[in-house]
Amino acid sequence: MLTKSPFLKSFFFLIIFLILPFQIFSQEEFYVMPMPREIKRLPGKFVICEDFGIKISGPISKRVIKAKEKFLSRLSRRTGIFFSLYPKKFSLNLYYRKTIKLSPFMDESYTLKINENKIEIISETDIGILRGLETFLQLLENNGKVYFFPAVEIKDYPRFPWRGLLIDVSRHFMPVEVIKRNLDAMASVKLNVLHLHLTDDQGFRIECKTFPRLHKIASDNKYYTQSQMKEIIKYADERGIRIIPEFDIPGHTTSWIVAYPGLGSLPVSYKMERFYGVKDPVLDPSKKSVYKFLDKFFREMAKLFPDPYIHIGGDEVTGKHWNENKEIQRFMKKHNIKDNKELQAYFNKKIYKILKKHHKKMIGWDEILEPYMPKDIIIQCWRGKETLYKTAKMGYYTILSNGYYLDLLLPASTHYLNDPIPENTDLTETEKGKILGGEATMWAELVNSENIDSRIWPRTAVIAERLWSSSGIKDISNMYKRLEKINLYFEDLGVCHIKNQEMMLRRLCNSKDISVLKEFIGIVEPVKYYNRHKSRPYTIFSPLSRVVDAAIPDPSFPRYFNELVNDYLKTDNKDLENKILGILTKWRKLHNKLTQLNSNSPLLKEILPLSFNLSKISELGIEAIEMKNEGKIPEQKWLSEAISILKIAKEPHAELELAVVHSIEKIIRSFFCKN
Amino acid sequence: MLTKSPFLKSFFFLIIFLILPFQIFSQEEFYVMPMPREIKRLPGKFVICEDFGIKISGPISKRVIKAKEKFLSRLSRRTGIFFSLYPKKFSLNLYYRKTIKLSPFMDESYTLKINENKIEIISETDIGILRGLETFLQLLENNGKVYFFPAVEIKDYPRFPWRGLLIDVSRHFMPVEVIKRNLDAMASVKLNVLHLHLTDDQGFRIECKTFPRLHKIASDNKYYTQSQMKEIIKYADERGIRIIPEFDIPGHTTSWIVAYPGLGSLPVSYKMERFYGVKDPVLDPSKKSVYKFLDKFFREMAKLFPDPYIHIGGDEVTGKHWNENKEIQRFMKKHNIKDNKELQAYFNKKIYKILKKHHKKMIGWDEILEPYMPKDIIIQCWRGKETLYKTAKMGYYTILSNGYYLDLLLPASTHYLNDPIPENTDLTETEKGKILGGEATMWAELVNSENIDSRIWPRTAVIAERLWSSSGIKDISNMYKRLEKINLYFEDLGVCHIKNQEMMLRRLCNSKDISVLKEFIGIVEPVKYYNRHKSRPYTIFSPLSRVVDAAIPDPSFPRYFNELVNDYLKTDNKDLENKILGILTKWRKLHNKLTQLNSNSPLLKEILPLSFNLSKISELGIEAIEMKNEGKIPEQKWLSEAISILKIAKEPHAELELAVVHSIEKIIRSFFCKN
Repeated sequence: MLTKSPFLKSFFFLIIFLILPFQIFSQEEFYVMPMPREIKRLPGKFVICEDFGIKISGPISKRVIKAKEKFLSRLSRRTGIFFSLYPKKFSLNLYYRKTIKLSPFMDESYTLKINENKIEIISETDIGILRGLETFLQLLENNGKVYFFPAVEIKDYPRFPWRGLLIDVSRHFMPVEVIKRNLDAMASVKLNVLHLHLTDDQGFRIECKTFPRLHKIASDNKYYTQSQMKEIIKYADERGIRIIPEFDIPGHTTSWIVAYPGLGSLPVSYKMERFYGVKDPVLDPSKKSVYKFLDKFFREMAKLFPDPYIHIGGDEVTGKHWNENKEIQRFMKKHNIKDNKELQAYFNKKIYKILKKHHKKMIGWDEILEPYMPKDIIIQCWRGKETLYKTAKMGYYTILSNGYYLDLLLPASTHYLNDPIPENTDLTETEKGKILGGEATMWAELVNSENIDSRIWPRTAVIAERLWSSSGIKDISNMYKRLEKINLYFEDLGVCHIKNQEMMLRRLCNSKDISVLKEFIGIVEPVKYYNRHKSRPYTIFSPLSRVVDAAIPDPSFPRYFNELVNDYLKTDNKDLENKILGILTKWRKLHNKLTQLNSNSPLLKEILPLSFNLSKISELGIEAIEMKNEGKIPEQKWLSEAISILKIAKEPHAELELAVVHSIEKIIRSFFCKN
Repeated sequence: MLTKSPFLKSFFFLIIFLILPFQIFSQEEFYVMPMPREIKRLPGKFVICEDFGIKISGPISKRVIKAKEKFLSRLSRRTGIFFSLYPKKFSLNLYYRKTIKLSPFMDESYTLKINENKIEIISETDIGILRGLETFLQLLENNGKVYFFPAVEIKDYPRFPWRGLLIDVSRHFMPVEVIKRNLDAMASVKLNVLHLHLTDDQGFRIECKTFPRLHKIASDNKYYTQSQMKEIIKYADERGIRIIPEFDIPGHTTSWIVAYPGLGSLPVSYKMERFYGVKDPVLDPSKKSVYKFLDKFFREMAKLFPDPYIHIGGDEVTGKHWNENKEIQRFMKKHNIKDNKELQAYFNKKIYKILKKHHKKMIGWDEILEPYMPKDIIIQCWRGKETLYKTAKMGYYTILSNGYYLDLLLPASTHYLNDPIPENTDLTETEKGKILGGEATMWAELVNSENIDSRIWPRTAVIAERLWSSSGIKDISNMYKRLEKINLYFEDLGVCHIKNQEMMLRRLCNSKDISVLKEFIGIVEPVKYYNRHKSRPYTIFSPLSRVVDAAIPDPSFPRYFNELVNDYLKTDNKDLENKILGILTKWRKLHNKLTQLNSNSPLLKEILPLSFNLSKISELGIEAIEMKNEGKIPEQKWLSEAISILKIAKEPHAELELAVVHSIEKIIRSFFCKN
């Protein structure tokens, strides 16, 4: 009866009407990422001053104590405020009920309330406090006079429990400080899993006391000592991040076999792999000694790594060496193993038991998915999203990496829209529950410690948002707006994605003056997918110091220019036209300037074809706008030449592409090719 | 008779005539630092190509093997060349006779020969090879098409055996990676001692297993674990750099006494020191238990640190707590100790014996100089150069730090001209031999891991040259020319002196666009000496993120501008005048631009008085040039106002000073105040 009352009905709609737009609007106006599940602006603001105390109410948690110190120093550094050593009042109150051991289903929720006089973060666990502090810091604003926090009320919790980043430290080793600064950045966007791809054909990167030849012979002396790894694990734990070690077996194991040839499937002499690609060396699954070795190996690693999960890789086994080994063929016949896929499954089941013996659970790439595997393993899907759904339907836990491959150098927006559970899914609620989240993957064939940050950040922040925030938060332009601000915050944590680009440009120019090259690099992108490998055979020693290595995926200026063009074509506004003409005029001159720079910088030679094409298409753009303004229609010859110049300008050079060709093309086509 | 032959005489002069100018000329044209003792350009050049092999001829040396790898990767990174994995020929040959243990008098000499076909570095020790490789890499040039090395012949060896840098890791802790990148930079300019100031009132920074409260209670959890310290020592050793640990006693010991109150001279409750300055807490030299403690302590540290020397500090003992303790007074009477100076000497002798027992020699600050100390100690002179000479005359080994204090923020030229043994010295050859070299000192009250590099580099490079090269190499303008190139090379080693400034400016501006603030920061300097401390009480928690912290000492643009002004005033050249007018016009506008920036950056407010003054004096400069061109002589009122504006513009604000006032003043005075 109640719901039928017209009064109540209108009242209900009134409430909806008042609340809904308010919430949507308010989410957009906050420059935070990932966007909290619920956020409400309240009247007023909390102005920061010297007398700023933090009170911790909860059981002793080293994480919270460290996070408090770190928070104060970050806030102080950003605002320049000299906080009182002995504050008189507690402005920020942290309440939590318990400290926990990190685990895949830990409670990370929190509420955050800011009003004019005080701030409260309340959570069930100490991890919730860490998450809340990161949101809080992102809310910082200023009005030119003071820094302040807007009064808000936030209720927040993650959509998926498994939100990770994989760093491949095998193809290029990443020193401890690279891992640490990336852990800080991960924590700042609430990621909670760092998956370290520790072994591969090109290098074995963790000290192994049981089998020391692994790190001594098969790492080029680049590996984490166990004491360094403990340091990393502790550092991660303090930030609420789990470390998942990956030991990729049975394929991707050249390094293992170089150190211990008895592990391999062929009795030949193995050499460290210096090139990239899918290689044939593979462990011999027919030998008892191999399992004995792995048993001892995992016993040691199970002690070193505290997480309940160990990743066993399992991807890209070519099977070639298995086919070539008669013993293995005999073994397969004897055990009634039909093919290499079944042989790998046999191997996996053995490994599963070894891990279980050492109290660890198994994760692996989607190749290890077999219906007869126990249901407590996790499948990491990289080859396609279909596998993800299939896995969930088969009743296995699963995480998504397909669509989150950072090394493909795709725009942030692509990753952003890659939802593990899209709206139109046919999965049941139970099946949905099997999808634990996802992991961005930073494969390291073509990155080193100088430029890895620029591949991970800021793009990984939008993946973090996809995995934390509501599925409904997916406005691309708002995402980019927020990303621009958050992007600078990573620098406070030591991330080098911006500053190392400038350093690389100084090296390329042999000069402190990089203005010209900086303009150029802002409008080019490295070629996408695996196309860089097509241009030349890279090895682990190849220099990653060329223009393509300094260039970043998804640069912002081409996006800005494209919006400018869209607005201009919609409105024919003269101001916009002048802006566009100004930009095109600058671009037209870039080629000559770069040619000059080249006289003290041999490495710029390879980009001159690009700048030449840029000057050509900029010229076209200018001519097109002039003709339009004069009411002229170009001759067919001009037009067909223009089309062919634009086509040429789309071709990559020096593993780079111009990222503004389509915008200039749009101007020309919109003026003269309407039909 | 021979020397009287006119023919021989002219021949002799001819030789002198041919060789001398050639050598002087050729030294100036090479952009290397420190300048080698002998360098000759030969005809031709060695062009680098993919087929570049390095051959090592000598006993196995991990240092040389690592240096070779590192060299190849640095050369490859800089040139972008993909070196062949299996080079067909050895272009670079490294010959050395023996590997050595690092020590204060090790042989670091080498010869380097480059011709069109090959390169040779020949040395007695593996350390000589490292030094030679650094010179070699600095010689890299390019002609826009290829990278090459000029053909040269170099014979090189150091002037002083002890060439060091002190980093204070107590006032601000510096993480391992900060130390590592600075070790790399040190090696690149042939420094061979890193002196770590490990303990002070504000923090105890090394794990001590015997007395764990030292690092656990007295470090705010910021210390090197022993395994990290071993990593640092190994890293340094691979680069031919000795690590000298300093444990500053008996003063500067608040942290020790907080951890173990029994060590202190007063039975009161001690608290960790958060402020700076000379403090009173001091070890009690009258207690046997203190020596027992130190004996155990140094036993552990003597094992950890392999160098023959341990630094015991010994500076700035106020004696106040000794005076206040009756037991100590009684002890002094009993042992016939006249005053606190003698009491410290008593303490030092005891420490000397403890160190000797653990097979270590003693270094200390110049306060420990007493005639009855054994002659194998080293005195580090910080209070004045007179002490240096006095020490040498007394027959003690000594090293110079007075005049090399990086924290005073003086220009590179000042440090450069600070010669440990000036030409006019009255020291005998034996006394000169007692002067082992010097150490730049980076006290860390006002630096953290973000900006320490910008205080150390590039200025420390010129101190390195002073300690390595001939005393005759002291042309300031040539030094700055070379420094500008070398400065960029440090970036290849991970040094953040340039890139972190830009990062700090982005944080200050809350924006990626830092052009305006960058222009401003290029012409200001932090106030020198200890004047920053006068402006406000700094603590170890104070933010170091203001404009003054991003600003660098001895910026290059004011030097450039000053030269421009000098040339202009000498020549009255119109081009120069226009350049100057262009610069002044830009500066005049800076204040308005900065005021705008301030609307999104509260921290810029404090610099507005400076930019205001800059706009005023720029205006004056422009008016002066205009009046001069119009043949006008300004009214007395204008002139006296100008003088007073210039005076005001010299005043510091926000702990910064304008570094261009004297140049503008020079223009005005030169035009209108000639008498």
